[in-house]
Amino acid sequence: MIKVGIVGGTGYTGVELLRLLTQHPEVKIQAITSRTEAGMSVADMFPSLRGRVDLKFTTPEDAKLTECDAVFFATPHGVAMSQAKELLAAGVKVLDLAADFRLKDIAEFQKWYGMEHSCPDILAEAVYGLPEINRDAIQKARVVGLAGCYPTSVQLGLAPLLSPKATGGKQLIDGEHIISDSKSGTSGAGRKAEIGTLMAEASDNFKAYGVKGHRHLPEIVQGLKAIAGHEQIGLTFVPHLTPMIRGIHSTLYVRLTEAGKAVDYQKLYENFYKDEPFVDVMPAGSHPETRSVRGSNGLRIAIHRPGNGDTLVILVVEDNLVKGASGQGVQCLNLMFGLPETMGLTQIALLP
Amino acid sequence: MIKVGIVGGTGYTGVELLRLLTQHPEVKIQAITSRTEAGMSVADMFPSLRGRVDLKFTTPEDAKLTECDAVFFATPHGVAMSQAKELLAAGVKVLDLAADFRLKDIAEFQKWYGMEHSCPDILAEAVYGLPEINRDAIQKARVVGLAGCYPTSVQLGLAPLLSPKATGGKQLIDGEHIISDSKSGTSGAGRKAEIGTLMAEASDNFKAYGVKGHRHLPEIVQGLKAIAGHEQIGLTFVPHLTPMIRGIHSTLYVRLTEAGKAVDYQKLYENFYKDEPFVDVMPAGSHPETRSVRGSNGLRIAIHRPGNGDTLVILVVEDNLVKGASGQGVQCLNLMFGLPETMGLTQIALLP
Amino acid sequence: MIKVGIVGGTGYTGVELLRLLTQHPEVKIQAITSRTEAGMSVADMFPSLRGRVDLKFTTPEDAKLTECDAVFFATPHGVAMSQAKELLAAGVKVLDLAADFRLKDIAEFQKWYGMEHSCPDILAEAVYGLPEINRDAIQKARVVGLAGCYPTSVQLGLAPLLSPKATGGKQLIDGEHIISDSKSGTSGAGRKAEIGTLMAEASDNFKAYGVKGHRHLPEIVQGLKAIAGHEQIGLTFVPHLTPMIRGIHSTLYVRLTEAGKAVDYQKLYENFYKDEPFVDVMPAGSHPETRSVRGSNGLRIAIHRPGNGDTLVILVVEDNLVKGASGQGVQCLNLMFGLPETMGLTQIALLP
Amino acid sequence: MIKVGIVGGTGYTGVELLRLLTQHPEVKIQAITSRTEAGMSVADMFPSLRGRVDLKFTTPEDAKLTECDAVFFATPHGVAMSQAKELLAAGVKVLDLAADFRLKDIAEFQKWYGMEHSCPDILAEAVYGLPEINRDAIQKARVVGLAGCYPTSVQLGLAPLLSPKATGGKQLIDGEHIISDSKSGTSGAGRKAEIGTLMAEASDNFKAYGVKGHRHLPEIVQGLKAIAGHEQIGLTFVPHLTPMIRGIHSTLYVRLTEAGKAVDYQKLYENFYKDEPFVDVMPAGSHPETRSVRGSNGLRIAIHRPGNGDTLVILVVEDNLVKGASGQGVQCLNLMFGLPETMGLTQIALLP
Repeated sequence: MIKVGIVGGTGYTGVELLRLLTQHPEVKIQAITSRTEAGMSVADMFPSLRGRVDLKFTTPEDAKLTECDAVFFATPHGVAMSQAKELLAAGVKVLDLAADFRLKDIAEFQKWYGMEHSCPDILAEAVYGLPEINRDAIQKARVVGLAGCYPTSVQLGLAPLLSPKATGGKQLIDGEHIISDSKSGTSGAGRKAEIGTLMAEASDNFKAYGVKGHRHLPEIVQGLKAIAGHEQIGLTFVPHLTPMIRGIHSTLYVRLTEAGKAVDYQKLYENFYKDEPFVDVMPAGSHPETRSVRGSNGLRIAIHRPGNGDTLVILVVEDNLVKGASGQGVQCLNLMFGLPETMGLTQIALLP
Repeated sequence: MIKVGIVGGTGYTGVELLRLLTQHPEVKIQAITSRTEAGMSVADMFPSLRGRVDLKFTTPEDAKLTECDAVFFATPHGVAMSQAKELLAAGVKVLDLAADFRLKDIAEFQKWYGMEHSCPDILAEAVYGLPEINRDAIQKARVVGLAGCYPTSVQLGLAPLLSPKATGGKQLIDGEHIISDSKSGTSGAGRKAEIGTLMAEASDNFKAYGVKGHRHLPEIVQGLKAIAGHEQIGLTFVPHLTPMIRGIHSTLYVRLTEAGKAVDYQKLYENFYKDEPFVDVMPAGSHPETRSVRGSNGLRIAIHRPGNGDTLVILVVEDNLVKGASGQGVQCLNLMFGLPETMGLTQIALLP
Repeated sequence: MIKVGIVGGTGYTGVELLRLLTQHPEVKIQAITSRTEAGMSVADMFPSLRGRVDLKFTTPEDAKLTECDAVFFATPHGVAMSQAKELLAAGVKVLDLAADFRLKDIAEFQKWYGMEHSCPDILAEAVYGLPEINRDAIQKARVVGLAGCYPTSVQLGLAPLLSPKATGGKQLIDGEHIISDSKSGTSGAGRKAEIGTLMAEASDNFKAYGVKGHRHLPEIVQGLKAIAGHEQIGLTFVPHLTPMIRGIHSTLYVRLTEAGKAVDYQKLYENFYKDEPFVDVMPAGSHPETRSVRGSNGLRIAIHRPGNGDTLVILVVEDNLVKGASGQGVQCLNLMFGLPETMGLTQIALLP
Repeated sequence: MIKVGIVGGTGYTGVELLRLLTQHPEVKIQAITSRTEAGMSVADMFPSLRGRVDLKFTTPEDAKLTECDAVFFATPHGVAMSQAKELLAAGVKVLDLAADFRLKDIAEFQKWYGMEHSCPDILAEAVYGLPEINRDAIQKARVVGLAGCYPTSVQLGLAPLLSPKATGGKQLIDGEHIISDSKSGTSGAGRKAEIGTLMAEASDNFKAYGVKGHRHLPEIVQGLKAIAGHEQIGLTFVPHLTPMIRGIHSTLYVRLTEAGKAVDYQKLYENFYKDEPFVDVMPAGSHPETRSVRGSNGLRIAIHRPGNGDTLVILVVEDNLVKGASGQGVQCLNLMFGLPETMGLTQIALLP
């Protein structure tokens, strides 16, 4: 059994980790910390866990995290980097659900997150937690910076178009003018008392936000560059707040090059993802629905080329709290400990 | 492995049975029938099942249901009774999610469902599928008429007040003036093309319906009489359509007798349900939420006695498609085949 | 033109007052105050008002409220009572949307709202703002404590059963055992940053709250006693949080006396409300929907007597922000200034 | 008073016309027809109209539509063209909310709507009902084919970039590669019994549809060509079903030409729409919300140029049933009869 600790389990990624790890046959949750809620039963905060999770929140001090095999950070940005050093020294593997170990460029990190990076050396060794792209590195990693929710959907939606493995090195699309029109449920904003995500504000309403610049933009661009193996990537990223709880739908638009017009994209995608247990390339003409992955670690993709023209439309759905966060975390944990990648992640989506 | 057939799997109880049975370690789904959709892949209708369920809908003729060990009817009222005889003759156990085997009084059945009952003899032997009340009989049953969604919440919410086992035969409440104010998500209306449950009609809206008389009223009254062991039961039942997908919340009001005023109801309920794996009596003062059981087979109860007066308020929540339908069906299946009662039913509720 | 000031316009009752008063032909909004938002354009906070409302929030000091004809308090409890004296001295009429002038019993006020009452003399003269019950007094009032949202629905739903004017002094119901099972949209919780009313918490969910005791309980009981003209009133009041924005649905249950069983309640209600412009007694057998009054000042009632038994069920719907708050405020304003009662309140409900 | 008839008032555009026209000071609704519901009171179908609309549905025969001044068709496609001739002959003006008089190219109409066009001559004289673009022609029109819901948002969002009046004839954008990522509430699908728009299917869910080709695509392209005055227009249009009742949000992406990079688009848009009563160009950096126009005839636009690059992002919101349908119809009616354009259309949006 792998002994796992969770730092900061009072948010949505925290309760989702608890749901998944409780059902994982090879994991024992050792401790879950929350300084503000120390002493409170986890099931008192999240009644869905009554009868299933017996833990109480503890202070970080009492949690003895250094005795764990792995520690998840389900915390605000900046917490993981302040504790990673000690944990690594004790031989504990670290998985961060926040952004501390995502952006490789420290200046970019500081610009977008408004704080100094306190451990550039650990950042340097950290692996970006997107298994379908980075599987080998994750298997050997001591520190994983899990991919963000939007970035997971956009990168997996575009990878077959950019990865030399798939394209044979040909330039199929105008990579400098990619558009991602992304829509997220309100759980993506976290379990935080804020007016903008109140039910009375956000339901029966739809709006874009962060059009000027969103923290996930540099992360996605960094990822796409890594996938493509070159720097010629430009992205317009427009996130939208959608009146639902869970789910991300990214609608991606790319312009095909002359070479790109000759390709069968259905086949390209199916081939690229044929061995991936969590990525489903749907039949041509499909329209994936967010609910088809609600509560599951799946991500579904459909490819369209309207009027057989030079614009390709890729539709991608995921559950932002599972494949976009905690489920992906468990997937990486499985890889890091040599377990079957799907272990504990076989829940079927809840529909309706 | 138990070979299971599903008749009529195109509705919400059908897809929910598929979700649960697919994850059941001792069940093999043999066939799923739909005359109108025969030949269609189940996963094409319910994309949540893509990659997890390989079945196609078949005609009843091709399904070879008589070779199954058990057959679920997830059909409109009237179908199960037309096929039960042949199945039973072949040694197949029958579980009906519709109402064919719920009401013991044939005249009542005909009055509320507007059709003749075609097999009164089978009805006579059928067992009412509410395990917490009827466990022993279910274990030996060949035919189970599964309890309705509202009736499950109301009966389990009231049983400790009426069952002589709990009350010691004392009359604690005025059983002739029970009130059940019940609220259901719109999935309770089924996967049927109707204007009243369109999103544009039912969301951001709340209303009562069927106040004059609802089919679940006679079922609940029959159940309460059986639990109480006497006929002095009167119920005012008001169902309400609630703008959510899943979930039932029943708010029950009973008047205490003089004898009833002396009882500690928190203790009474905790004691009554102490060995039940799926019934959670919450701490005094709690307010159960429907989402705390979303997707799970749990049912949660909280007891209130405002101002320590003579009115007792019992709050009950369940997922109408799980504990109120398909989950209860699997629970009965486990009992009928001698399996652990919780097998295949350990999913944790999806929150948020 | 009546010069109107609004104190504390950053909440939902504030924006609703602005919507209604802007369309009122005899009102000029003089000032709207918010200490925290002073200087901000109202339309920047509430984009629905762009192009229609030109005001900025001002400090109370700059608002010159004493120069108004009437001032609304759309503030937290406790603010109105601290400013009423000065306004009244200046000849300004006061309408409070909070609870400062609702409860006549100071001890009750202090118990439920946790603060001293700072002006018992003004409270003594204040009139309870429920026009259908108190029309004459409101017309002459200098200070109106507007009825709460739940209390409006419950009192108007029960008045015909208790008012001697309607009953001829006969006791038709067991007034000591009234049950109000009430459901409210989440806007009733106000425009406040809180976790419990986040979209990700409150949507696709249903729960009761405050069963032990809710501030509206003493207000309703006080109102029912005044309507009945006696003290023998007992109420069990259970509010529920409903996943919608606007709307209250109260389901009321009363037990008929022997005398009460002989009455035609449809006729009784129709007669009682026959001249009321905002109360609609629906045809027998109806199920009112909250959306049928969304955005309007109407309140609809339907009466049921299931099985012609001794339990009467009354269904009441209103928009909690209009008839339950700001619309009722405008209705009272009209009365206080001798205007037609429906002036500025003729909006038709928004459906769908 | 203008005598108005409504053909086919049982859908959402019908009830919305009733809401608006009832509050219009210069309109008298003469008749509303529905063959299937003839004899039924309109207020029985739409309880929001109880006490406000006294009409009954009548058969077309009884409606004496030829005695009206104007007739609205709130019907399925194909009805208006079958009755227009007779009405025009009687001097009645015709406004069609369906698609019979939108597409000028008969072959296109037949391809997308699957029916012959029965009156090409009337189509030839019909005016496209988008007042901000076509005001003069509408004023003189006998027949108006009202713009579709999506097309209104896309055309008004793009007009300043294409209209020679605004651009001075310069080519500012790559007009052959315009992208419209549009999101609509489910009322856009109409009041029709269908599984896909059930609350249990469409809420807490998000999906694209019609990516291969949607009927609004040729309408938008036709409109953009007319605005631009040339044929070099290419559009990728992806509609999405959004879990809300009302509202359309179109997110438009265009690539700037070299000449286009020098333009101040905030100023361009503000100037283009400076005299339009229903179009609001929001301040730079804004994110319009659909609820800010809920129930109103307003349309709001915000312009973004992320990173000051060569991609322009235009955000547009409208209420699909008002500015996208019935409100626009009333706006055209006002123009056709020489009334002030905003008459009867001054409702403020309902927020929250």
